[in-house]
This record gives sequence, structure tokens and C-alpha cells, in this order.
Amino acid sequence: MDERLQRQLAFSLEIDKEKNIERQTHLSGNGRRENDAEHAWHMAIMAYLLREYANEPVDIARTMLMCLIHDIVEIDAGDTYAYDADALATQKAREDAAKERIFSLLPEDQKAELTALFDEFEAFETPEACFAHAMDNLQPILLNNANDGGDWREHRVTARQVYGRQSQTKRGSERLFAVTRAIIEENIEKGNIQK
Amino acid sequence: MDERLQRQLAFSLEIDKEKNIERQTHLSGNGRRENDAEHAWHMAIMAYLLREYANEPVDIARTMLMCLIHDIVEIDAGDTYAYDADALATQKAREDAAKERIFSLLPEDQKAELTALFDEFEAFETPEACFAHAMDNLQPILLNNANDGGDWREHRVTARQVYGRQSQTKRGSERLFAVTRAIIEENIEKGNIQK
Repeated sequence: MDERLQRQLAFSLEIDKEKNIERQTHLSGNGRRENDAEHAWHMAIMAYLLREYANEPVDIARTMLMCLIHDIVEIDAGDTYAYDADALATQKAREDAAKERIFSLLPEDQKAELTALFDEFEAFETPEACFAHAMDNLQPILLNNANDGGDWREHRVTARQVYGRQSQTKRGSERLFAVTRAIIEENIEKGNIQK
Repeated sequence: MDERLQRQLAFSLEIDKEKNIERQTHLSGNGRRENDAEHAWHMAIMAYLLREYANEPVDIARTMLMCLIHDIVEIDAGDTYAYDADALATQKAREDAAKERIFSLLPEDQKAELTALFDEFEAFETPEACFAHAMDNLQPILLNNANDGGDWREHRVTARQVYGRQSQTKRGSERLFAVTRAIIEENIEKGNIQK
């Protein structure tokens, strides 16, 4: 087998580990915690189905791929909960080191391509990155809402914290942020999110 | 919220259940069994990275989406192990009913689109379907090989059974079938696959 294909298969095997990275969000039906690979799969399908609501037209293949790979660095860096201030402070350094190690398994051209796509997601500027972030927010809020806000209650999350993160959805989709706001307000009303 | 968006979100929530459908394959590192959503995520990324080895050029967005949705019917129909003859006999009827129920949650145009894409995968004729099937075979064989063939040993699988399924990879990628054959032969040699 030539080196190129060997590297592609080594990377393919390495990313299997993403299935072991647990998130705070629980599956619907009050299930177990979901993992990064499941979350990414879910986001990519939602991106495809909901792309008509993006503020600007998106290249859907790029958006889906961005969704699929955006958490690969967490294989080394771990999941950083959206409302954990201490972990957020060290997140970038941990993720940069992980990005270098993991994408270096690939042939140079694919390393460069996936690194650029990951950086584009993080930079949060292009229509694709903004819409992928909207999915990154909307996917867990759908699950959490289906579980009567259990994740918010467990972490005693406040409206200010939820809006701080979820209002970013606007940058990808005003339409889907309207849905998000309705879900948040309903959960504040129910006492699942602290005022 | 209008009915279209409601239906899209209802479908998005429904497919969360795919994360509970367990496969026979174990994660690398002799991990737990993987589930359909993780498997689909893994296949879609591999399809993107390995597309240069497809026998014929593939539309990569269609191929990735096909990988992502190809097992959604198993939410109702369950996973059918590749080497379970009894379950294989009833697989089509179970999956047809599931396809109708689950995709009917979507707006009509998206129901039609995803149903057609699912049927295209099943028909196994287009370059995209053939390459997606190659990923459906290659992804678990990589994991199983990394686990020293544990899944084959557990089910006492024979070389004839493995080749019966895995030789289909040729239809999507001769190059990746060469890799597959090397893995199979090595595992026959080690006694992980019965002669």
C-alpha cells in the first residue's frame, strides 16, 4: 500500500476515538450522554435539511464536512462545556496542539485542507461557518428541550448564559434563532433555565 | 412556526433515536459496540477523504448525505447483521415500513428526496451508491482489524461469508478492495476468519 493511502487509513482509524468523547447533552428520551461523533452526524444532516434558512446561501458539502470534523480535536483536548469558564480559558491551546497532531496523520494536502476548514469554523465568519455554528447550537437545544431542559437544570444554567451562546445562532440563521428564542423563553417560563 | 419548519424539526428530533441502534462492530481499542449514527458519521468522513479511489467520479455531497442517512430506517427495523441469514430474509419488508414512517415526518419534497437517496443506496447502481457501499464495508473492517478480528471470531465468520459481502467493495473502488483483500487474507492467516 502506498504511503498516501496508509496515512488516510491511519487517520480514518484514529478518528474512531471521537466516539468516546462525551458531551454534557443527553439523548432525547432522557437517554445517556451523547458523544461528539453522534453530535456531528446529527448536525450534518440538520445542516442539509435546514440550509434554506441560512442567512446567506451556503456550499452544503463544505458545511456538512465542517460539521462532521469540527470536534475532532476533542479526541485529545476533551469536550469543553459551553458554560464552563475555567475550561474555556485553556480551550484554544489544548485544541491547537490536538489539531496539529491529529491532522498531521493525513497526507499534506488533506492536512492543509481539513486544518483550514477547522480554522474556518473557529473563525466564525463565512456563511458556512456561521451556519455550522447555528447547527452546533440548535442540535443540543432540541435534545435538551425534548428532555424538559434537564441539562440546564443539572448545571443551573442562567438565561444570560444560554442567550450568550445561543444568540450566536443569529449570525447563521435569523429564522432558526427565532425558534431558539421561543425554546429558551418557554424553558425560562418553566423554571428549567434560571432567570 | 410554520408547518414546514415544524416537520423538519420533528424529523431532526426523531433521528436522534438512531444513536440507540447498536451494531455488531466494536470500536477500536476493544471498545463497546458502535451505533448506527457513529458508523454513518465515520463513513461520511471516509467517503470524503478517500473519494479519489472511487472507480468513477462521485458527487461528494450526495455520497456523504447517502452515508449519513443510509441507516435511518433501522430506528424502526433494527440493525441486521451482515451474516445473519434469518434476519436478512425479512430485512426489506421491515425497512420499507420504517422508511415510509420516518421520512413522512419531513415536508413532501424532502421526504421524496431522502427516500430517493435511500433507494439509490439500496439499488447499488450509481457511482455514489457503489462508493457509499464501499465505505459501509471498509469502515467496520478497519475497526475489526484493529481489534484483531474480534467480531469475526465472536461470530465464527468464514472467509466465504466475509468475501461474499466485502467483495462488493470492488463495485465502488477496486483500489480499496485491494486493501480489503489484504486485511481479509491476513485475518484468515491469523485464524480470526475461518477458512
